[in-house]
Amino acid sequence: MADYRAPLADMQFVLDNLVGYDEVSKFDVFTHADRDTVVGLLDECARFVSEVWAPTNRPGDLEGSRLEGNEVITPESFGPAYKQLRDAGWGAVSHDPAFGGGGFPTVVGLAVQEMFNSANMAFSMAPLLTNGAIDMLHAHGSEGQKEQYLPRLVSGEWTATMNLTEPDAGSDVGNVRTRAVPQADGTYRITGTKIFITFGEHDLTDNIVHLVLARTPDAPPGTKGISCFIVPKFLVHDDGSLGDRNDVSCVSIEHKMGIKASPTCVLSYGEQGEGAVGYLIGDENAGMRYMFTMMNNARLGVGVEGLGIAQMAYQDAVQYAQERLQGRAPGAPGGTRSPIIEHPDVRRMLLTMKAYVEALRSLAFLTAAEIDRAQGHPDEAERTAAAERVDLYIPLVKGWGTDLGVEVASLAVQVYGGMGYIEETGVAQLARDVRITQIYEGTNGIQAMDLVGRKLPMRGGAVVADLVTRMRATADRLSAGPEALQPIGARLTEAVAVFEEAAQWLGAQLGADVRDALGGATPFLRLASQTVGGWLLGDAALAAQRELDAGRGERAFLEGKVVTARFYADNLLPLVKGLLDPVRAGAADLLALEPAQF
Amino acid sequence: MADYRAPLADMQFVLDNLVGYDEVSKFDVFTHADRDTVVGLLDECARFVSEVWAPTNRPGDLEGSRLEGNEVITPESFGPAYKQLRDAGWGAVSHDPAFGGGGFPTVVGLAVQEMFNSANMAFSMAPLLTNGAIDMLHAHGSEGQKEQYLPRLVSGEWTATMNLTEPDAGSDVGNVRTRAVPQADGTYRITGTKIFITFGEHDLTDNIVHLVLARTPDAPPGTKGISCFIVPKFLVHDDGSLGDRNDVSCVSIEHKMGIKASPTCVLSYGEQGEGAVGYLIGDENAGMRYMFTMMNNARLGVGVEGLGIAQMAYQDAVQYAQERLQGRAPGAPGGTRSPIIEHPDVRRMLLTMKAYVEALRSLAFLTAAEIDRAQGHPDEAERTAAAERVDLYIPLVKGWGTDLGVEVASLAVQVYGGMGYIEETGVAQLARDVRITQIYEGTNGIQAMDLVGRKLPMRGGAVVADLVTRMRATADRLSAGPEALQPIGARLTEAVAVFEEAAQWLGAQLGADVRDALGGATPFLRLASQTVGGWLLGDAALAAQRELDAGRGERAFLEGKVVTARFYADNLLPLVKGLLDPVRAGAADLLALEPAQF
Repeated sequence: MADYRAPLADMQFVLDNLVGYDEVSKFDVFTHADRDTVVGLLDECARFVSEVWAPTNRPGDLEGSRLEGNEVITPESFGPAYKQLRDAGWGAVSHDPAFGGGGFPTVVGLAVQEMFNSANMAFSMAPLLTNGAIDMLHAHGSEGQKEQYLPRLVSGEWTATMNLTEPDAGSDVGNVRTRAVPQADGTYRITGTKIFITFGEHDLTDNIVHLVLARTPDAPPGTKGISCFIVPKFLVHDDGSLGDRNDVSCVSIEHKMGIKASPTCVLSYGEQGEGAVGYLIGDENAGMRYMFTMMNNARLGVGVEGLGIAQMAYQDAVQYAQERLQGRAPGAPGGTRSPIIEHPDVRRMLLTMKAYVEALRSLAFLTAAEIDRAQGHPDEAERTAAAERVDLYIPLVKGWGTDLGVEVASLAVQVYGGMGYIEETGVAQLARDVRITQIYEGTNGIQAMDLVGRKLPMRGGAVVADLVTRMRATADRLSAGPEALQPIGARLTEAVAVFEEAAQWLGAQLGADVRDALGGATPFLRLASQTVGGWLLGDAALAAQRELDAGRGERAFLEGKVVTARFYADNLLPLVKGLLDPVRAGAADLLALEPAQF
Repeated sequence: MADYRAPLADMQFVLDNLVGYDEVSKFDVFTHADRDTVVGLLDECARFVSEVWAPTNRPGDLEGSRLEGNEVITPESFGPAYKQLRDAGWGAVSHDPAFGGGGFPTVVGLAVQEMFNSANMAFSMAPLLTNGAIDMLHAHGSEGQKEQYLPRLVSGEWTATMNLTEPDAGSDVGNVRTRAVPQADGTYRITGTKIFITFGEHDLTDNIVHLVLARTPDAPPGTKGISCFIVPKFLVHDDGSLGDRNDVSCVSIEHKMGIKASPTCVLSYGEQGEGAVGYLIGDENAGMRYMFTMMNNARLGVGVEGLGIAQMAYQDAVQYAQERLQGRAPGAPGGTRSPIIEHPDVRRMLLTMKAYVEALRSLAFLTAAEIDRAQGHPDEAERTAAAERVDLYIPLVKGWGTDLGVEVASLAVQVYGGMGYIEETGVAQLARDVRITQIYEGTNGIQAMDLVGRKLPMRGGAVVADLVTRMRATADRLSAGPEALQPIGARLTEAVAVFEEAAQWLGAQLGADVRDALGGATPFLRLASQTVGGWLLGDAALAAQRELDAGRGERAFLEGKVVTARFYADNLLPLVKGLLDPVRAGAADLLALEPAQF
């Protein structure tokens, strides 16, 4: 396994050329986050991640987190590494300075997340979940709650969890049965069982802040009767000191295919008496609404897990392919053995990985920058438009990003050959770890249905139409550009037409039989993402060519960008042509069989 | 995890309608293997596999095989199950009756293999590798060697291994360094190290027969200087009793992503003295040629590992989707929760799995039946033509079959959602186990290059042209058939045209710049296989419709065949349209970057 080397050059390229970081950094709230400061920050982060975080990955997988009694013991290397994370403040980069955060744009925080995920995805879930809880409390907590919890969550002194899932209700959050009974003192008593709670118990911090969805006794059924509570592992006195142990305990942890170092806990609330002490966030019965406001960030975070693993898998495969001698490549002198990177089929795998990683990074960073625009742009219409784009891109980042994470990790295993299947080389771990990302935070099937059912109809289809306009503009610029770029323009023009046709067909079905639209959702998610990827790599090629023409930048890197875009346009973008019929196949065949006929 | 239920109805359907078993069973050597006898045999095998073999799968994965000293301890349940396999003779179904085999056609042995793989792929590798050695000895061993080894390998009293790979030479067999020094008594002394030796050491049998590739002192370099030797773990006296322990020992076993119960051994030959005693098979320097004659069967066997896992994954997912309640499906009454099999997107996953499993079974069984024709057909021209078809289909069965095994297992994980990622449910194991099949016995990239570089040019392209003719005939029959089948005909006609165009383009490049052809090999393997799958499911739909029209057979099953073929035609066959451009993209972009630019 290669040592992790952060893709700083590509991150800078994306910030400079594809997401308009220059504009974002001029928003009032980000005046301290100019481009050069950010480059310095990412550089420092890369060093930390390589030196401190990455070395914990393989031992973390080997040891796993384990349960002793009700205590979770994390891998030995995690404690010291977590302490360094906290001391350096890497969890706080994009949080509110009022509570100790760095106040950097979301897109900068995302770049940091990518690096942490590449280095150790399982471990990085602790700060990731904490981030989600910070956002929730920041948006919906009372002033007192914010003062009590945020500084210590932002600093990493404590971690936090999100407690949604219960036994027998995975994606069915409306089915929550955990009870919250109001007390005379304004607190609630929580009883019930939550499953799949990431870092629900561990030995890294003094306290853990659980955010728990539960029902009050008179709550209406379904998602409209769910409230959200703060349930700290240890109660917190007004002076900030820790009080009694709350009645929440880890009763088991799961044995999983991957992310073995991340303890996935079953938490039991109220086993000892009348319930764990909980504090209501905001209003009763508004819990699901609050959760939904967190969803975009959570799904973006999972998409970036896919990106982080894909990047690490790509690095590994490239290094192995450069070193490993096998066979004789076409054109190599007789009697010699070639590094496998010289074999056309291995090249195809590596270029596929490179193109997908760079396309995905562009999309994820762009989405994050749109979040920054939606929050910080001085113009309200621009804020609204940016927020719409975020909503449109999120299912792509989560669904496609995690599909690509799995595909790219699998390609790395394949480049390694038999050695890839041996755990010692580490690529098998990447493949095992990343597989969960297609499932949690809304399965990719749910992402596809979100895209078709909720996002296509936004503003009467105009948000999608705006995207088509943007993509077509890039295609036109490529087609009118230098000869090296014209074929990319032609391919992109074709793909955008396919995308438009698919979107229009689905839009029409939504008004007729929604099952026909939802039946085509999964191929459409891929079709749409694959097209968007071509657009962003096309933009990258334009920017790289401009830099080359101006004699700026690193030539080898920029030429690589053009080749990568052309490879994608010729080899990966045309896949959309095979997806159009499946999108439009309708649901008749899907529904033709009785369950017993399967 | 569902209990294994062998897909006997589909196996019979394939034998009766798609592979011409009726014809095969009339060959002189198979007169005892009439259709009803075979159905009875498969029924009995299914019971054995479900009751004896399947229960060893999950404990086998949990315990794994482990090394103590130089001994390999297999999982506790394996010894008793292996004894029952041996007593019942399930390893001997298609071997030569002269040595105790059942003398059944290859296609029957393949159906048996599928079941064993579904039930426990890791364990089934012991008889699989033994099969390969039996074939080798049967084809190239001396009469004395056959008499000495075959009866006890066929019965399962002993197992066997194939020793090709060495450190630093995976697919590069020509690089073998193991030495074989001839002795005055006609034996050889073998010294060297072999890696990735499946069941290279274990505690299931009294003896293990290693077939080892090695070089004699004056051998020419490369693949033309490799000889093949029998190296038994215990020497065998002329009376058949076991003699001294030979100088071969297991020095380590690999820690793998999956098939943990299958010990993957590093074997050291000649550590104690002047070498392990080995017996030459056939002629010196002919070892690679002998190995090549085994290759088709070995690759077919690995393709059927993909099929076996895919079948098990499909069963599991269907059962889970029928039982698991979540959300409300479109059209379901308000306030109810639906089994997830009612959700269109879950249906899409299940139908994709069903269609791929059935297409792959058809292709694998057809290939095996062509092997039977190639060996048993009374007409020599028919034998030759069948052998050509075998050569053409093999890279498809191995490459596509194992790609589909991985895809279908991954879909099962996805249908299970979060529970699929938890090891207890067993589907994660299927995904981990099957991943190796894309790698060993020639990576799928090598399969693709074999298809393009060796199989397309067979008989000047006429073998492929014959396939096109066959596929087009099916398409025409569908298009001229009842209304329910016509759309399948239209889709298949389109796909066959795409296949023909791709094959012709590649054929032309082979005569120009071979790199352009090899660069497109991987997408072409998929394109070709996907088309062949549509052809076979189209044939299945025709047969099912014929039975339905005649009022024969089980209605629900046969209607399911028609729906499955239509689903495949509308949703999976069109993917070929997205693969044509990648096939024809050429190698220029692949080769444009310097290794350091990755």
